[in-house]
Amino acid sequence: MYLPAKVKIREVAPRDGFQSLPDFLPTEDKRAIIEAVVAAGVREVEATSFVSPSAIPQLRDAALVMEGLGRKGVEFSAVVPNLTGAKNAVKAGADRLVVVISASEPHNLANVRRSIDSSLSGLDVIFQLAKEHGIPVIGAVAVAFGCPFQGEVPEADLFRLIDAYLAGGAESILLGDTTGMALPTGVSRLVGNFMDRFGETELSCHFHNNRGTAMANLLSALTAGATTFDTALGGIGGCPNVPLAAGNLPTEDVVYMLEEMGVHTGIDLCGIIEAARLLEKILGKTLPGQVMKSGPRLGPGACTSH
Amino acid sequence: MYLPAKVKIREVAPRDGFQSLPDFLPTEDKRAIIEAVVAAGVREVEATSFVSPSAIPQLRDAALVMEGLGRKGVEFSAVVPNLTGAKNAVKAGADRLVVVISASEPHNLANVRRSIDSSLSGLDVIFQLAKEHGIPVIGAVAVAFGCPFQGEVPEADLFRLIDAYLAGGAESILLGDTTGMALPTGVSRLVGNFMDRFGETELSCHFHNNRGTAMANLLSALTAGATTFDTALGGIGGCPNVPLAAGNLPTEDVVYMLEEMGVHTGIDLCGIIEAARLLEKILGKTLPGQVMKSGPRLGPGACTSH
Repeated sequence: MYLPAKVKIREVAPRDGFQSLPDFLPTEDKRAIIEAVVAAGVREVEATSFVSPSAIPQLRDAALVMEGLGRKGVEFSAVVPNLTGAKNAVKAGADRLVVVISASEPHNLANVRRSIDSSLSGLDVIFQLAKEHGIPVIGAVAVAFGCPFQGEVPEADLFRLIDAYLAGGAESILLGDTTGMALPTGVSRLVGNFMDRFGETELSCHFHNNRGTAMANLLSALTAGATTFDTALGGIGGCPNVPLAAGNLPTEDVVYMLEEMGVHTGIDLCGIIEAARLLEKILGKTLPGQVMKSGPRLGPGACTSH
Repeated sequence: MYLPAKVKIREVAPRDGFQSLPDFLPTEDKRAIIEAVVAAGVREVEATSFVSPSAIPQLRDAALVMEGLGRKGVEFSAVVPNLTGAKNAVKAGADRLVVVISASEPHNLANVRRSIDSSLSGLDVIFQLAKEHGIPVIGAVAVAFGCPFQGEVPEADLFRLIDAYLAGGAESILLGDTTGMALPTGVSRLVGNFMDRFGETELSCHFHNNRGTAMANLLSALTAGATTFDTALGGIGGCPNVPLAAGNLPTEDVVYMLEEMGVHTGIDLCGIIEAARLLEKILGKTLPGQVMKSGPRLGPGACTSH
């Protein structure tokens, strides 16, 4: 089994998770979680989204969240749906901007009420702004592994978006399995084809667990050569209307599996478990993450002396 | 990615799941679930355990559960901890007997209060009984991928048990990740070594999800050549004291992933989702299984016309 020596984890709970909560999470709680994952060794956090407060009121404190976060080698990225969001993110000190377009027309229309062409034409001004400020851009492709409206999404439709992102100057590409439709076979094929076509471009894979396959998909991406993964503390994220379903891969479970297989993440397992337990405490409910319940492989005691 | 054309699923919810429930599940509910999974196409069910009612009162109706189950090409296996259990299982019409010994001394002592040697010496009479009645025996190895008391379990300790099972006439070997300590790398190595050493002997892998890695472990076993898997409807099983943790792999999620990858299970996805939803209804709580919440890949509608 081919495994890389190390991988990068992008912690997305503060964006993908907190926007999916039924209620607004107080800013100090958001910051406490971000600080806890950073303390555990996470080096990239998708901290928030600079989106209209009427569209996603859960993230209406985006600028406040960013304010005063200690840097110390940590990159805080922010999702920006348009030029206004990008300007606000730059002003708030975002280290990376994340732009998102769906690979299927019906999903992009449902998500941002624009056609893919319209979304693409809106990218130029964001890339221009990012260049002026020397801020890297991550080009994210939503529903990259299947669309709930359209079904299969042709690879050519992904590559068209990726080509546009790279032409605009994106530093990194993110493939999102937005509604958990990816399968290990398709993931392996797509990651392989991505690497053949786009070479050394950083690729981040973002898997949701709607159908129980997210960890198998991550393993498949890993053995196919992917080295950056989006994960969310506790496995939060996705659709707030489906109890315990549809979350992201739990960061702590991914760190556990990777580190135990000898793949370096730079994240301390006991620290990230502690962060996940803090999140459960703050949210006041049981979350999908597993290793925080059972403890590390060599017994719960393995973290108590930490 | 190597994949077999087909696999066999052993449904273990009626044994591993029902014995872990906090309360006794009425016999008619147990039978209803067994009938539902059989209706969906499951062809082997671990139906119960003929264990002392004082040890596991949840399964005190073992003989009643077996009574009157329609056969029609379905094999009903039963766990038997000793000769008394084996006699009762034979009397009740079990199609296969499952004997279990832990691969670590402390786990076997904790589990059955006997040393491994003592457990091994008790096998002869069970194998003898099975031969007299022409009933195949499955030799199960508990904590095959790690022990919560001992830590790593040497492969030689597994192989010693497997050799004893095969010498006694076992038809099939089952490797249990009893407390969810398996990792994809170790699974791949062990399955490969098993096949090198024991050739065509049927190997069933049984993964618990205590640390979120069960589906990745299944994928790893599958690509390494394993073709029989223990799964439990809804993902029930394991320790009743850990909420939503420690369950088996949900049968419906495994069927979903395998069928979508072109690996034939003989099980109808909509039927097994229906069975999982029935189980949630009977138990009156949300279970870990995911695909029953999100629906099949091509939308929830994919099952409504079924």
